[in-house]
Parts: sequence; C-alpha cells; structure tokens
Amino acid sequence: MQLMQSARAKTSFDTRQLTYIIYGGEKETRLREEAVARVERILGEDGKRLPYVYGEVTRTDLYHRGLHVGKSMLEDEVINDHQKFSHLDINHMLINTSPFGLHVGMFMPTIELQADAEQRAHWLPLARSGQITGTYCQTELGHGTFLRKLETVARFDPKADEFVIHSPTLTSTKYWPGGLGHSVSHAMVMARLIIHQKDYGIHAFMVQLRSFEDWKPLPGIELGDIGLKLGMNGNDNGYAIFRHVRIPRRNMMMGQAKVARDGTYTPPSEDSAKHSYSTMIYARAAIAHCVAFVLGKACTIAIRYSTVREQGNLSFGASDSTELPIMAFKSQHYRLLVLLAQAYAIAFSAKTCLKQYETLRRQQENGDNSMLPYLHIMSAGLKAYGGQLTADGSEDARRCCGGHGYSVLSGFPDIVTTQASIPVLEGENHVLYQQAARYLIKKAQLVRVGNPGMDVKDLEYLWMGYEDLAAGRDRRCLATDDQLFDPSFLLQIFRHRATRNIFECEAALRSSLESGLKPRAAWNRHMMRLIAAARHHVEYYTLESFIRNLEEIQDAGVQRVMRHVCRLYALSTIESPNSIGSSSFFEDGYISIEQIKVIHEHTNTTLEAVLPDAIGLTDAWNFSDASLASALGRKDGNVYEVLFEWTRQLPMNVRNRTTGAGVDAVAFEEHIRPSIHLMAAHSKL
Amino acid sequence: MQLMQSARAKTSFDTRQLTYIIYGGEKETRLREEAVARVERILGEDGKRLPYVYGEVTRTDLYHRGLHVGKSMLEDEVINDHQKFSHLDINHMLINTSPFGLHVGMFMPTIELQADAEQRAHWLPLARSGQITGTYCQTELGHGTFLRKLETVARFDPKADEFVIHSPTLTSTKYWPGGLGHSVSHAMVMARLIIHQKDYGIHAFMVQLRSFEDWKPLPGIELGDIGLKLGMNGNDNGYAIFRHVRIPRRNMMMGQAKVARDGTYTPPSEDSAKHSYSTMIYARAAIAHCVAFVLGKACTIAIRYSTVREQGNLSFGASDSTELPIMAFKSQHYRLLVLLAQAYAIAFSAKTCLKQYETLRRQQENGDNSMLPYLHIMSAGLKAYGGQLTADGSEDARRCCGGHGYSVLSGFPDIVTTQASIPVLEGENHVLYQQAARYLIKKAQLVRVGNPGMDVKDLEYLWMGYEDLAAGRDRRCLATDDQLFDPSFLLQIFRHRATRNIFECEAALRSSLESGLKPRAAWNRHMMRLIAAARHHVEYYTLESFIRNLEEIQDAGVQRVMRHVCRLYALSTIESPNSIGSSSFFEDGYISIEQIKVIHEHTNTTLEAVLPDAIGLTDAWNFSDASLASALGRKDGNVYEVLFEWTRQLPMNVRNRTTGAGVDAVAFEEHIRPSIHLMAAHSKL
Repeated sequence: MQLMQSARAKTSFDTRQLTYIIYGGEKETRLREEAVARVERILGEDGKRLPYVYGEVTRTDLYHRGLHVGKSMLEDEVINDHQKFSHLDINHMLINTSPFGLHVGMFMPTIELQADAEQRAHWLPLARSGQITGTYCQTELGHGTFLRKLETVARFDPKADEFVIHSPTLTSTKYWPGGLGHSVSHAMVMARLIIHQKDYGIHAFMVQLRSFEDWKPLPGIELGDIGLKLGMNGNDNGYAIFRHVRIPRRNMMMGQAKVARDGTYTPPSEDSAKHSYSTMIYARAAIAHCVAFVLGKACTIAIRYSTVREQGNLSFGASDSTELPIMAFKSQHYRLLVLLAQAYAIAFSAKTCLKQYETLRRQQENGDNSMLPYLHIMSAGLKAYGGQLTADGSEDARRCCGGHGYSVLSGFPDIVTTQASIPVLEGENHVLYQQAARYLIKKAQLVRVGNPGMDVKDLEYLWMGYEDLAAGRDRRCLATDDQLFDPSFLLQIFRHRATRNIFECEAALRSSLESGLKPRAAWNRHMMRLIAAARHHVEYYTLESFIRNLEEIQDAGVQRVMRHVCRLYALSTIESPNSIGSSSFFEDGYISIEQIKVIHEHTNTTLEAVLPDAIGLTDAWNFSDASLASALGRKDGNVYEVLFEWTRQLPMNVRNRTTGAGVDAVAFEEHIRPSIHLMAAHSKL
Repeated sequence: MQLMQSARAKTSFDTRQLTYIIYGGEKETRLREEAVARVERILGEDGKRLPYVYGEVTRTDLYHRGLHVGKSMLEDEVINDHQKFSHLDINHMLINTSPFGLHVGMFMPTIELQADAEQRAHWLPLARSGQITGTYCQTELGHGTFLRKLETVARFDPKADEFVIHSPTLTSTKYWPGGLGHSVSHAMVMARLIIHQKDYGIHAFMVQLRSFEDWKPLPGIELGDIGLKLGMNGNDNGYAIFRHVRIPRRNMMMGQAKVARDGTYTPPSEDSAKHSYSTMIYARAAIAHCVAFVLGKACTIAIRYSTVREQGNLSFGASDSTELPIMAFKSQHYRLLVLLAQAYAIAFSAKTCLKQYETLRRQQENGDNSMLPYLHIMSAGLKAYGGQLTADGSEDARRCCGGHGYSVLSGFPDIVTTQASIPVLEGENHVLYQQAARYLIKKAQLVRVGNPGMDVKDLEYLWMGYEDLAAGRDRRCLATDDQLFDPSFLLQIFRHRATRNIFECEAALRSSLESGLKPRAAWNRHMMRLIAAARHHVEYYTLESFIRNLEEIQDAGVQRVMRHVCRLYALSTIESPNSIGSSSFFEDGYISIEQIKVIHEHTNTTLEAVLPDAIGLTDAWNFSDASLASALGRKDGNVYEVLFEWTRQLPMNVRNRTTGAGVDAVAFEEHIRPSIHLMAAHSKL
C-alpha cells in the first residue's frame, strides 16, 4: 500500500480535470458517479466482498444476476430521468452485458428512426418508461450481417389486414438477439416483406413476444436461451421460431416504406432510407467509445498491480536479487503505457465521431444527408479498429499480470471475455473494414480522375497526399530528428502511408479488372491489402482527432501529460514490438533506417516521461473498486490481503470448511476413494 | 454436408499418412485412438449429445467433472499400462486441465530426477500406480517464477530428525498448484531449507497433505480451491497454508543436496544440480508440443465451419448476391491457412526439441551435460513462442467464425480460455524469452572475441552469420525471385535477421555498460529488443526444424503438400497483415522493396496451392467429434442442425419448457413483474 501511495504521489497533474474531459464535463461526471453509486448500493457490490458472479453460479444464476443488474439500471434511468447507462453500464462495459442493452441501443432508436409519427407516439412512451422492453431481432442461425439473405418472412394477409411472421426453415431461426430468451416483451423483427407473392426485401416489424399476464410466449412463438457464451452471460441472448404469427398491419414500421390497407407498397424515399443508417452509425461509434473504457479498466488493473507487485529480474551480469515493482521493467511499462495511450486515443476519436454524428442529425433535419456515407464507414472503421485494439490489448494487459491475471478474482476474465465479443458483434471487423475500403477506393477513383469533389473535409488529406505523390513529392520522410518527436509531424507519416496504400489498392484493383478479372474476384484478390488500407485511414483519423482534442484541453498540466500520451500512441503505432502491420510504414522505404532508430529513441524518452504519471492516468478514468471487481486493481494497492480474503469467501471453500472440515465430500466419496481402492487392487495383481 | 463432402474430395494426399507423422507412427496413433475412445465411452461423450460442461454447471460441478475425467485417464493409463495422456489429455489439451496434470507432468518427474535411489524405490511405484497422487507446490501468493524469493520455510529439527514446514507470512501461502485444492494426497513443496538458522535456499520436500482414511487435511495444513479461472476449471488449482507441519528428514529429496542425521548439509554436485533442470526442459518442450494440437483443433473447427458457412460478399462493382462458402474469401483462408501452417511448424519444432531432450538424457547418463544449457533456453523459447502464437492464433480462428464462435457450443470458448493460460504458466513468456536472450548474448560475446567455442551445433549459424556480417557480406538479400519461393533460401533471411539482431543487442548492451550503466539498468534499457532477438532465434529454429522434418517424409503426396505448408509458414512470418514484429525483417533494408512485392505474390500462390487441401490438412490431426466438442467443427459438416439441437438440450431451456411453458419463473416473478408494476406506477405519476 505504501508503494501505491508513493507512486500516486508522483502524479504531475490534476487527475480530476482529466476525468471531466473523459466523461464530458464536471456535471456529467458527477451525475454518472451518483447513478453508478445508487445502482451499486442496490446490488450490494461494495468492492470489499467477493463479487457475486465469481462464486458458485450456473448459467441460470448468471442470467438472473444480469437481469437484476439490467433492471436496476433501467429503473434508475426511468425514475431519475437520465440516460447515463445508454451505452455504458455501471461497470463501464458495453450495455449489451445486460438483457436490456438492445432495448436502449437498438429497439428504441429503430422506433425513433423508422416508425411514422403515429407509431412513434404510441410505442416510444411505453418503451422509454420501461413498460415494454424490446430487442432487435435480425441475426438468424444461417445469416448474420448479410442482410439480403435473411429468411424470416412477413407475408401480408389483405383479408385480415395483418402480417404473418414465419420462420420457414431451421436456418431462419432468429438466434443471438440480446434479451430474447426470457427477458423482453417485444421484438423488432427484421423479415422479408411479401405482398401477393412478391418479395419487397427486409423491413422491420414490431412483434409482441410474451403475454404480460403470465409472461408466456404468445401462440406460435418458441423462445429460449442460447446458453453460455465466452462472456456477457448476464444477457440471455436467445432464439425465436415464429410459426405463422399474426400481427396488425400497422406493426410494420412505416416511417419509410409503407403498406396500405389494400396491400399497395410505397417504397422509402431516398432520404428516409438513409435515416435508417443513422442507428448503425450511432451504435458503432458508441461501441468504439465504450471499448476505450474497458481497455482503460484493463490498464488500470494491470498498472495498479504492477505498482505493488515486486520481483527481481534477470540481468546481464551478476544476478541481482533486490526486488522492484514490476512496473519498473521495460517489458511491463512499455506494453502497459502503449495500451493506455491506445485507450485514450480510441476514446478521443470515438468522441469526435459521436460529435460528427450529432452534427449529421442536425443536418438531416434540414434534409442534408451529405455526411452520411462518410460517417457510416468512419463509424464502421472505428468500431473495427477500437474493437481489435481493445480486445487484443485487454488480453495483453491480462498477461502482464502473470498467473494471477488468469484468476476470475483479478477481474480480467470478465473483461477479456466481454471484449472478445466486440470484433464479431454489430458487424464483423473484417467486413466493416471492407465497407470502409470500398468507400475510400471510390473516393480515390474520383481524386485520380481529377474530380475536385472531395466533399468530405476529413478526406482532404487524401487529395493533398495524392497530389504530392503524383508530383513525385513526399516519397521520403524529410522530418528532422526533432520533428519526429512532434505528433503533428508524425501525422504526416500516417498521411503518407494511408494515401499511398489507398491509391496503390485503387491501381491494383483497376489493373486486375483490366486484365479481365470479375469485380468480385478482383476484390478478393486484393482483400487483405484493402482491409489494411482501411485501417490505415482509421489510424490517421485517430491520431488527427487525438491531436485536435489535445489542443482543446484548457488545463496546462493535463495538456502536458496528454501530449506525451498522444506522442506515445503515434510512435508506437509506427513501430513497437507488438504493433501489427507496422511493416506498412517501412515497406516503401519512406522512413529511413536512421529514422527508425530515432523513433525507437523517442519512444524510450516518451515512456520515461509518462511513467511517473502512470497511476494518475489510470485514476483519471474514475473506476470505483466495485466497478473494477478486481482483487489486483484495488485503488489502495492492498492486493494480497483482498485476493486471499476473496479466496476464503469462495462458496466452495466456505461449504467444505463448514460441512467437510476441508474435504469436498462428493469428490472424495464418488471419485477419489473408489479410484484409490481400484489402484491398490490393481497394483496387487 | 454436401459442401463438406465435395471439399474433402479435393484432398490430394493420404491424410492417414500425415496422421502417423503427427502422432509418431502408426502404432502410436492406433494405441492413442483406442485409449481416447475408451475414456470417451466411460465419460459418455459421443459428440452427439450436448457436452456436459456446456450446461448448468457451477464451479463445483466443473471441478467434479474434471476430477472424473482426470481419474478416468489415470486409471486407463495404469490399467492398460501406457502413458498416452502424459501431456496431452483426451481432448488434445495440455494435461493441466485435469487435477492430475502436475502428478504426471511434475510430481513424478521430480521424484525421478531429485530423489535418491532409496527414495525413488519407495515413492515412484506408489505414484505410478496412482495409489498416491501429488502436485508440484512452488508458486506462492507473492512470488511465482522468481524462485529465490519464495518464503515457505523447511526448518530442520535435529532433535526429532524432522523438517518443520511453515508458511511464515500471508504472501507465502502456496497458491495455484493444480489439484492442490481437494484432489491430491501429496505435494512436492518447494521451500527454503533452514538448518541451525542458516538458509540453504530452495529445496524439494515431500509432504503428505491428506489422510487416506477420511481425506481430511493433516494437522496444521489448510487447503482450499482458488476458484474459477479464465479456463481449465476442471482443475482445482488450490492454496495451502502450512502451520509448523512436521515431516521426516528423509522426505527431503536427497538425490542431489543432502541433510545428514546430525544436520550436516551436503550441497549438490554441479552435475546433479543440472539434472533438476531436465524436468523443466521436458515440461516446456511438452507444452510447446501440446499447444500445437490445440491450435490444430481451433483451425479444424474454423476451417470446417468456413467450408459449410455460406455468405455473399462485398465487391467492388455491382453487388453480387450469390453466396460462397466463406473459406473462399481471402480474409478467411489467408488467416486460417497461416494459422494451420503455424500449428504444423510448432508441432515439428517441439518434436525436434523433444528428440534433442531424449539425446540429452542419454548423454547425461554418461555424465555429459554439455547440451543442457542450450536445451534449457531452447525449450523456454519454444514454449514462449508456441504459447504466444497459439493463444493469439486460436483467438483469431475464433473470430473467423463470427458470432457463432462466441457461443460455448462452438467449442472455442473452452479452447481460447485454456490456451490463454499458456503464456503465463510454467514461466511467463517475457521472462522465458529473456532467459534465452541472456544465453544468446553470452554466445555472441564469445563469437565476437573470436572464440571458436560454438559448441552447440544449432548455433553454428550465428557464427557463420557473424563472419558474413563482419566481412561486410550478407547486407542485402541476393535471392532471385524464384529462390524466394524456396524455404531453404527463406531460411537465409531468418538467419540474417536473428544474427543481426543478436549481435546488435550485444553491441548495444556493451556500449551501455561502457557508458556507465549498471548491468541491470543496461538490460532493462534494451529489454524489448532482447526479447525480440530471442524470438528471432526461435523462429529460425522453427523454420529450420520444419525443413528438416519435411525432408524425412517418405510419402510423396504428403511431402508435396507439407512443402507448401512450410513455405506458407516462412513467407507469412516474414510478412503478413497479422504478423507481429515483421518490421524487423525490413528495418535494416536487407529485403528490398521489390522483394517484398515478390513475397506477397508468392504468398498468394502458396495459398492457392494449399486451399484445396485445407480439409485434408485438418482431418490429418485426427480429432474425434467428441474431443472437438464443437457444433461448428463436426466432421460431417452438419453444423446448423447440431447447433440448434444442442441449444434445445440446454438444461435451462429443458427446464423452462417443462415446468414453465417457456417462462423462466424466477426471472419473471422476482425481477420482471415487479419492475413492470413499478414502471407502470411511475409513469402514472
């Protein structure tokens, strides 16, 4: 604990000021703190007792706990009239850990954006007040993100003025939607609209799933849980089979496409179709924002533990048995500080994207959808990038905690298994990167043929970069050694790489098409490079947004330390032992061999500058001990006592101490004793 | 299922021949198949029913199941007189998933290597016949691999002719040993030997933990489970506190150091001390061998699923809604085939290391320990490398399965959470790499001062590489484009990188020391590069051993396809979108910009050559459906039916169908109904 105190005493800045920046202001911070504290109290989680889910729990217990947590958050939001848990739950995880994550994240937004005025007036108050709860029912057993192949059918019956929702095949079974198993009353079902045998494609239908009387599934509906997952087991992701289930015609969301009483179909206007994309933009940017907090949690636990865990180390000459906090070892602070820098980088870029989304929504009210395609791919790319970095990064932070990081009591198993969902949910990462790539390639085509229509300000760098490349400029990085210490100059390196790769991909695709490959084959041929190019753009965006956010920081102390953090993000993205795909910075000889060495030196210098503020930079995320649920990550550094105290509190140990004097009776009677007898008999043969 | 049949029909070689190579011959393969089948029958796992552990299980249930599995394997080994599960369990996982993993992996080997003849004659028959079971008790709450700081004490009491085992502090609590909680009767306790107040360092002591009468912990011993972990929950990793526990003097392992009746201490001879390292060499090489099988499992599931999962894709031009098995998409087969190549590469290099270990054991019988230091660091490096690649790789294979890979029913959660233990167990990866680095640097020092004492044949390449570098040769890769397709030429690139980095590290360390840094600070300064350099040597070793194993393959068809697999390993290690640290191949300009492009082209060509054999190359690993425990990885490709069948069989669904007509009563009565009433009341306010 002394080690923790003295480490914290080295902090050079006011951590509370940085907390306000992270949470969007002093008032926001305080209101969220209060809301979290209220719910923690209701749940009895105080950071001192063994967290409930670490004990003797089955699939059903985990679900019941998740339901309790989810309901408590929902009730707190309704009663205290706030949306502090709209994408970040009380544990600073994506709200999808709760059965009602999709209720706030997708069900209500779909009503807002796809219902007509009358429908909104009917459904929204019910949903907002929690009197009905819903899920978003898209994924089927056989198809996920590839919307066009969904099989569930909504056939219009003009006689009854109803739709008939039906699952025609095994693979059409709805599978995965959160809360679908046993928790929600309604579902927004994505199904093929069929009128008079004609298929009009996928539309959204409001289907009541359960009776409010006894909660039984309504006739023709089979519902169930899909079982344990790698993580997120508080959520009852479920399945649904519909057998000719009838709903009123007006339960189709008709803000865009419409079906009249006589079955006449009115397609959505071009504008309104675009509104439905907005839900996805928000959801993906929100996920990117959320995962930054989870990586922040992982770093907080690992850095705090590394501050109090002592160890000797190998050295080159005589062995040295004096011990140091392991944070002093380079392999520890290199990895953890780089991860911490990534957490901040993702938080800032997601924040930028969420702001741009708000601007888009205002523009859309004036009929201006021009930003939509760009923000659509940008949020997709950020979700993929943030998801990849934080899933890999929280796992690396876990490994930094050695053996103890493998215990649930460390909090890490919950974190890494939750994060592991991110690369595959709400659009699989490699598909999302490809969506971004397709858009960027189209832009690059326009630029190449001299089209000044680079209407998206964020993409002006591509245009400028292309002009430089075309004119034979910017083929070598001309920065001086000092300039390589400046994030703004490092941004030029990111610019060069993204531009070069996007235009090289465009040329490679063109050449493949010219040589006779079909579009699909040409795309497949260059797919890995296209995915990489999309990531390069996202990394440019992320560094650029980090720098811009930096400039807006008022507090001088905070700005100073965050400038180091930003620099660390930039330098380590270009080159670090764990960076993926960093050869893309070097493969064209843009950065010289000497410059690589300078970058290594600058990285070391920056690590030394950040190291004394490591504890301050984790405190700033403002995680309560209860929300960390980690014996290793305790704010006071009292690691070993809590770890052992929680071990003693494990229900299995309590039971075996109380009833078996240290013996697990079933283990002994059913397995061990018979086996010992068997072995003894056999050895006498 | 048709898709699977036609994919399998494309196989160009006799998969059974490759199976024999993987398992060490036809007879070995058959004997293991029979043993696995016997145990699977006893456990009732047939690959058709929902696997038991995917259902409604608590911490205790998981442990009881693990105990059942572990006992069944142990009994089968004893009764049928084999060691087929000595490091690979019936599910092709590291045996540590069972409470008796350390019994066979560490407890018995410690007796063999550290006991004297009389002790061996007493203890080994008891242990081999399973009449006693033991664990290896080293790690404490406060210290893991850093042996010298262990706190548990074994004080010699000359009056009683006994040792007194004692845990003097909270942090000295033994924590983590497998089976320690409730399963084993004995422990090999590593403790500080104290005679007449003098500390002789860490020695091994045989301690009986439990009474065979009633299984109660013997007086003064507190035992318990350490709770849920990220994975391996069939094992009751436990804790132990010793309060002045007395054991006979002869329970100290006295094959090396000895304590006489009067307390006289005889230190180990230099030779015998080296024997104790052999346990570690074997354990680490065996782990590396084992994890290759687990990555093989992950690839088998993901490739089989990708063969039957269909999806449309994005394309550059017009959208194309016809569907293809997702294995056709480059982002899928690129990642999965590279991972499969890594699984084979690790299997072969671990096999080479295990063979070298056998040679060492024969040499040691003649008093020749010369290979020991090299094999010690080589097995450490292989364990670190194999652990890193397979933990990251099985997670990437999981992501290749999209949403379904997140369900336990896919088998992936069990695989990735088990693999996640590897980088931190039996020596943390970054520590192991540093051990290897220290040895390599010492060798490099010798080479630099012209010492021909390069006594280890495997390291001759360093000597040759250094001569080339010193003479100004080998600064550019001179291979022709065709030569870059040949694994033996690619090995030269690996040689250059390893040599250059090891000697650069040596120079950097020397220069830091000369400038006045203390050894420890100098080491810390260059730690990340040292870790990388060690990995570069391991990668050289791995490719070299892959090539040598290749040459020994008799079957022409198998050799042809394995040559492609070997090439893919080499090419993708140099450069692939997911390769870590690949910039080390480029940062000195050794490989030209043109050559990088050639390497990309060769990679594509190789992928096309391997793709038709993807199913054959997974079938060759010979995993039964029961050992995969995956609805996605079924050999017949019948994915969706099994996935849904297992979902219906989930205990929670069975219960709610039977007793609640589709309602989870507790969820509804305790949480949902009260909340709906609350919300309704609140909305009326």
